[in-house]
Amino acid sequence: MPISAISSFPLPFSPLRGFGVARVLESKNPDYKKGDLIWGTTGWEEYSLIAEKEALFKIQHTDVPLSYYTGILGMPGLTAFAGFYEICSPKKGEYVFISAASGAVGQLVGQFAKLMGCYVVGSAGSKEKVDLLKNKFGFDGAFNYKEENDLDAALKRFFPEGIDIYFEHVGGKMLDAVLVNMRDHGRIAVCGMISQYNLDKPEGIHNLMCIVYKRIHIKGFAVFDYFDLYPKFLDVVLPYIRQGKIVYVEDIAEGLESGPAALVGLFSGRNVGKQVVVVSHE
Amino acid sequence: MPISAISSFPLPFSPLRGFGVARVLESKNPDYKKGDLIWGTTGWEEYSLIAEKEALFKIQHTDVPLSYYTGILGMPGLTAFAGFYEICSPKKGEYVFISAASGAVGQLVGQFAKLMGCYVVGSAGSKEKVDLLKNKFGFDGAFNYKEENDLDAALKRFFPEGIDIYFEHVGGKMLDAVLVNMRDHGRIAVCGMISQYNLDKPEGIHNLMCIVYKRIHIKGFAVFDYFDLYPKFLDVVLPYIRQGKIVYVEDIAEGLESGPAALVGLFSGRNVGKQVVVVSHE
Repeated sequence: MPISAISSFPLPFSPLRGFGVARVLESKNPDYKKGDLIWGTTGWEEYSLIAEKEALFKIQHTDVPLSYYTGILGMPGLTAFAGFYEICSPKKGEYVFISAASGAVGQLVGQFAKLMGCYVVGSAGSKEKVDLLKNKFGFDGAFNYKEENDLDAALKRFFPEGIDIYFEHVGGKMLDAVLVNMRDHGRIAVCGMISQYNLDKPEGIHNLMCIVYKRIHIKGFAVFDYFDLYPKFLDVVLPYIRQGKIVYVEDIAEGLESGPAALVGLFSGRNVGKQVVVVSHE
Repeated sequence: MPISAISSFPLPFSPLRGFGVARVLESKNPDYKKGDLIWGTTGWEEYSLIAEKEALFKIQHTDVPLSYYTGILGMPGLTAFAGFYEICSPKKGEYVFISAASGAVGQLVGQFAKLMGCYVVGSAGSKEKVDLLKNKFGFDGAFNYKEENDLDAALKRFFPEGIDIYFEHVGGKMLDAVLVNMRDHGRIAVCGMISQYNLDKPEGIHNLMCIVYKRIHIKGFAVFDYFDLYPKFLDVVLPYIRQGKIVYVEDIAEGLESGPAALVGLFSGRNVGKQVVVVSHE
């Protein structure tokens, strides 16, 4: 321990921070005793000092892999749950599109949507990921955005009647193409815009007038505002995992020294499934 | 009659349609009898045939100018009411910015916001309009966007602590500047984007990543979805008008022949207040 998930908030002169799983060695907080398993904000290091203000949850259920608490049962899982059920107001039979759909959040949003009876299509950046979406996660369709010259045409192919719900992870050209394919009263949950983070100047989005014409609802959100939903989320998701109704794919890198390459790999889309770094098997 | 408001939806080979006030001369619908006053979708013509599917409301209160039913007591008024109270979730003390603020909708949104105890600033396109916002409608501040080289700097001058609510009428560069000045959990009600309608290609908006960072909520809306609120709206607004707590400014053009110039004037911002065309004083 800890197993660190790749989602870092760098602070100057300190190890990168990310969501990880760890065992308590010592605690001055009476709620945590030696030996307890926790997940929350840990450092990219073998031993972490965790301040009380950090996100921290005690792990109660250990019949699933502990690494799941960096993903499907941790921050990305709760992100998918809050984003889909609280922001998207989904209804049975609706048309759902998810970008970066094979990531930790996307794969779960798609499975939630399928369980609700929606039609679900995802985009990803390799054949391997597209196959995963269709064959492992049960999406109705999936495409490799790198192989599409015209994203608008690709979306029209999969959504001839338009999109009710877009779960946004990438921004840029994809968002612009989605806007013209949204249906009236469509909802866009903005979880991230990874295509834009490292640009000197973000791309211009030209189709925002669709927001007026189609009365579209767009909402940015962060999991930090939804931590109170965590118990309810576990009640829903743990049974699905145990029954095999929801599956989960991780991309596991071994050793703290593999962390930097794993982080850089996220931006080129090298990882397949949730990127996890095993710091210690204990 | 009718008095036609300038908000047209052109149909081929028929007069322009807009919201107007008229007196019933003949009706096959038992709900409307000869002599009744109505407001709703009328033609730019002296005599209109109104189909049942059109928006149509009977005028019950005639102690206010009838032209008000093309504006503050009609479609723009209900737009302001639904947009502000239903979309913006306003709270006392919040920071509110309104673009195209001297128009029929903007002037009313600003007054609703002041009545709620918000800090309100509007933008407009002439000194005359800016003076109107500050001196007639009681805005806390107003500026002429045509005189600002740097809209971001202008917004920071008026909103050093950021914007909670943006009532959007214009789009383009103004929206881009507003996004970076929004506060966390800010709300943007998108009523229109008039700066973009006549461009071959709409301007690119570059600051949408703020939606994620600040968990911003953006919602496009159309008054057509809120007609059921009309009775409640009248109950709120009519007393305010009678007590002088809400004021209203119209720009009245005389005669049907003045209609085309009045319509074109909207796009250059020539009108001050709600543009109305008097077709007949009856």
